Amino acid sequence: MIIGLIGFGKVSKNLFNLIKSDDIQFVTSFENRSSKTIEHIKKTDIEVFDSFKEVAVNSDILISATSPGSALDVAKNYGKYCDGIYLDLNNISPDTTFEIAGSVKNLVDGAIIGKIDSENPILYVAGKKSDDLQFLNEFITTKKISDNIGDAAILKLLRSSYTKTLSALLIESSEIARKNNLEDEFFEILALTEGDEFREKSISRINNTLDNSKRKSEELNQIIDYFDDEELIMVKAALKKLNR
Amino acid sequence: MIIGLIGFGKVSKNLFNLIKSDDIQFVTSFENRSSKTIEHIKKTDIEVFDSFKEVAVNSDILISATSPGSALDVAKNYGKYCDGIYLDLNNISPDTTFEIAGSVKNLVDGAIIGKIDSENPILYVAGKKSDDLQFLNEFITTKKISDNIGDAAILKLLRSSYTKTLSALLIESSEIARKNNLEDEFFEILALTEGDEFREKSISRINNTLDNSKRKSEELNQIIDYFDDEELIMVKAALKKLNR
Repeated sequence: MIIGLIGFGKVSKNLFNLIKSDDIQFVTSFENRSSKTIEHIKKTDIEVFDSFKEVAVNSDILISATSPGSALDVAKNYGKYCDGIYLDLNNISPDTTFEIAGSVKNLVDGAIIGKIDSENPILYVAGKKSDDLQFLNEFITTKKISDNIGDAAILKLLRSSYTKTLSALLIESSEIARKNNLEDEFFEILALTEGDEFREKSISRINNTLDNSKRKSEELNQIIDYFDDEELIMVKAALKKLNR
Repeated sequence: MIIGLIGFGKVSKNLFNLIKSDDIQFVTSFENRSSKTIEHIKKTDIEVFDSFKEVAVNSDILISATSPGSALDVAKNYGKYCDGIYLDLNNISPDTTFEIAGSVKNLVDGAIIGKIDSENPILYVAGKKSDDLQFLNEFITTKKISDNIGDAAILKLLRSSYTKTLSALLIESSEIARKNNLEDEFFEILALTEGDEFREKSISRINNTLDNSKRKSEELNQIIDYFDDEELIMVKAALKKLNR
């Protein structure tokens, strides 16, 4: 089996390390690649073709793991040459996934949940062809969501809407507790029901959100746009909170 | 030492069982009590006085654990006769606690966090006189918050504003997930970061909130009234969510 890689960042690198085995040949290309990435690839036994077109033509599975902004271009430029499975692992919106579906034959949309370099990352996949990816369970837990292209991207959005809104709630609650000089006690009593690490996890979430509030706001806007539901009261409040 | 009990519901009963010991005599009265409560008390070795006035006069610590609606009356009627510590354990607002402070000499306001009949309930106490309650640590973990009367009630309110708003968020997120046929997967992927029991705990919170939405709304209204802060964006959204 031949697996082609477009993109050689954290996701591709870790997937390569997890999946490499005697029966699987990885292939990629140096086309338009930085010298740093070329150096990284040279240290592996990945086979290098002259072009990504050639990579696409020869792959049983073509993995696109580049950046959200280039995912659609990659699909349009190379997806059409791929008769195998086109596995998109970019962090893109469901709408972009639907657009990509128009350019490639056997799309599977995937989402890695949990850090790819952690102990137990899980690969969620959606689309009819994701049945053919079950063999990956030998290397990384691989769960099929459904036959519906886009479901992996929607699932990421659902997760993101919960965690970002929770962060906004933590910001607000700890702020009111602090104003009443009860911040320590607030975290302490909630740890009784929310788990011992509540304080530590909460502070990390609060700081991560405040440090990236512009990006988090943009992501909340995307969530609100995509689901377009008047019931999204909490998510909209989170956006309002972050914009303060 | 003599501890007087006004109210003999779950809190008083469990405190009595936790604290009873050779050096401590519990006292109470049958005044205005139901026959059922009288039966309960008769099964214990609690000493019974003719009136709560007598109980108040004779107690080193007088514990009021009745109902939120009668806490203020109890304090006004009997608190003035108590020269010992008056420990209020009713689930009341900080404003009611401040009113009670006007009627009794040595008020300590307390909050039991965690179920009183669970393994590790914690008694939080506030007020200058709460130093004198540290001996209770022999029987139940007893933490002093501060010298400020009302801090225990405020702490309960902070906890309540977090947990109720979280429930509103869970209701909204699971609703959107369900509309997208991804409810199971939503709970599954969040369990990876929120803990194995995330699904079970979330569903219990959602049901508890929906089954008592009128009362939860009232409590959210009290929180909004008490803190009276324009930054309470998430809590106000939770109220809006519950009113749907």
